[in-house]
Amino acid sequence: MRRLVILAEGSFSVFKAKTAVGVIRYSPNQTVAVVDSTQAGKTVQEVLGFGGEIPIVASVSDSLQFQPDTLLIGIAPTGGQLPPHFRKEVLCAIEHGLDVWSGLHEFLSEDSELSHAANAAGVTIWDVRKPRTGLVVASGRALHTRAFVVLTVGTDCNSGKMTTALELEKFAQGRGWDARFVATGQTGILIEGKGTPLDAVPGDFMAGEVECLVMEHDAEGADVIFVEGQGALLHPGFGPVTLALMLGAMPDAMLLCHVEGRTTYRPDHTVPLPSMSLVIQTYEALLQPYKAPRIHGICLNTVELTDAEANRAIEQQKAEFGLPVCDPVRTGVAEIWEALEPLVRQ
Amino acid sequence: MRRLVILAEGSFSVFKAKTAVGVIRYSPNQTVAVVDSTQAGKTVQEVLGFGGEIPIVASVSDSLQFQPDTLLIGIAPTGGQLPPHFRKEVLCAIEHGLDVWSGLHEFLSEDSELSHAANAAGVTIWDVRKPRTGLVVASGRALHTRAFVVLTVGTDCNSGKMTTALELEKFAQGRGWDARFVATGQTGILIEGKGTPLDAVPGDFMAGEVECLVMEHDAEGADVIFVEGQGALLHPGFGPVTLALMLGAMPDAMLLCHVEGRTTYRPDHTVPLPSMSLVIQTYEALLQPYKAPRIHGICLNTVELTDAEANRAIEQQKAEFGLPVCDPVRTGVAEIWEALEPLVRQ
Repeated sequence: MRRLVILAEGSFSVFKAKTAVGVIRYSPNQTVAVVDSTQAGKTVQEVLGFGGEIPIVASVSDSLQFQPDTLLIGIAPTGGQLPPHFRKEVLCAIEHGLDVWSGLHEFLSEDSELSHAANAAGVTIWDVRKPRTGLVVASGRALHTRAFVVLTVGTDCNSGKMTTALELEKFAQGRGWDARFVATGQTGILIEGKGTPLDAVPGDFMAGEVECLVMEHDAEGADVIFVEGQGALLHPGFGPVTLALMLGAMPDAMLLCHVEGRTTYRPDHTVPLPSMSLVIQTYEALLQPYKAPRIHGICLNTVELTDAEANRAIEQQKAEFGLPVCDPVRTGVAEIWEALEPLVRQ
Repeated sequence: MRRLVILAEGSFSVFKAKTAVGVIRYSPNQTVAVVDSTQAGKTVQEVLGFGGEIPIVASVSDSLQFQPDTLLIGIAPTGGQLPPHFRKEVLCAIEHGLDVWSGLHEFLSEDSELSHAANAAGVTIWDVRKPRTGLVVASGRALHTRAFVVLTVGTDCNSGKMTTALELEKFAQGRGWDARFVATGQTGILIEGKGTPLDAVPGDFMAGEVECLVMEHDAEGADVIFVEGQGALLHPGFGPVTLALMLGAMPDAMLLCHVEGRTTYRPDHTVPLPSMSLVIQTYEALLQPYKAPRIHGICLNTVELTDAEANRAIEQQKAEFGLPVCDPVRTGVAEIWEALEPLVRQ
């Protein structure tokens, strides 16, 4: 288990530091401190509403007292470049013998100053978003898994697909199943320790990467595999990534994630979301020649609502679609798992 | 206009040198010689059945008498590496002042021996398959083109989508329309001189690349834009590339390309093709929330059939689907264009 210090200088919040927040919530590694000089002295609990007494400090130097062994870049800014004011903190970490984990599009291991410093200090830089070599094209192998494969899909990107998959993995494990998580984005990979950075893989090989990961878990004897979704099938930009997941994973079931109240595709907001019933119909129709997976539940992201508003939204969707509906964080995934478990058992 | 010598050593045939064949058939550049020592002394016409008196010679050195200014790598082998026995021919071309055009996955401009030689000789290496920098995510801009956008799609990869688009571009231009071709694969780019090597673009940016190219032609006043398809929507490996074209181009119409008699997806042949009616239904259903494009014609690739067999297949499909059906190479695209022209005129 690693002892992480998370660098989120000037950005530590639920909305600005998705990577930090996901790792604090779900990683088996221990976060020993967060660096954000604008909030130094607070605890993570005070800022996020969870995370306990993890201290927020002003610099990497101030975090060394908590004996971290790894610096994690905790943000994923637009464009994916290292913010210039992060550089001295990264160098400080390297000089003190910390490994560096980064999910930026800019590869820190290819930055001459940082890679030179890392070599000198004998530490490792892990660029999570760098596709591996030896990529292969998918061939439909996942049609023949022994495990039951569940893919989280969305009405849009950024709707809770990773969280849903992780909550279900944990829940199913608690019920005694060999449940696995396939990470397909940088935060998921940092949590799981492996996976594929699907948004950085060349188009021809995306489905192949997913297929390889699913088949590995299947060969190891998994009962149920939860594959982290990306994008949304009809999203003008990110649809292809979603289709790669569908064809690579060949799911037996899908769960639809939706942010309650959202009406346009992020990040441009120029294209309206289709109705949820049309979205469900489109997802279910597409893989007809294969396993013909159905949507078995809806996971509502109600983070911006009150409890009463969230419950009203959940009840409304249940009535409309006749499916289990939950908010994985607010209400848990028990009801969704109850719907899936008999299928997994078959 | 360039004077090309095409290197296809040991491989010059319709089936093994798709890049060479496409460029000879469609490029406005002039092919002055083909290098294949195993067929030296023949003409291109004798080997391909078209191409006229272009000589086949034993080496790049033997081609210099025809004053080429550019060497084109004419094959696209599995894995996309430069075959070792090609290297001395490429070096010979560089030393004699020829530019080098390559569609290999291996970037020749990043090969230290070749790039050093190119610098010394003052020639340029163009790696057609290298994605440009500054990639953007698609935002649905192609929903608002003034031009009529036609996308060629397939029941499988390698079924005639580029050929169909190029034949239609030429035919429509002959009727006086401002018709454009959007190249999305290495051979298309070599023919057109620009485009996007979609299979090498990271997943998140594929649709954006297509959108940019379509919008450029639209801004320049095109009447009709033929977008070169890739893959096939339900192909286990290549489906995502197809979806990127659909979402990036937001077509007004689609044409379905099919190789008569093919029953399994290439290259693995482990997964059966769905019925053509299910394929048509799936393509037409997917973009419902957008322009809801229909399949307006079927382009049959009948290269392996006799004329009588080809005509029988074409008539059979016409009867079954009530659509114009042609083989773009054997019978021409007039009937397909007649069906599209009234829509373009609107």
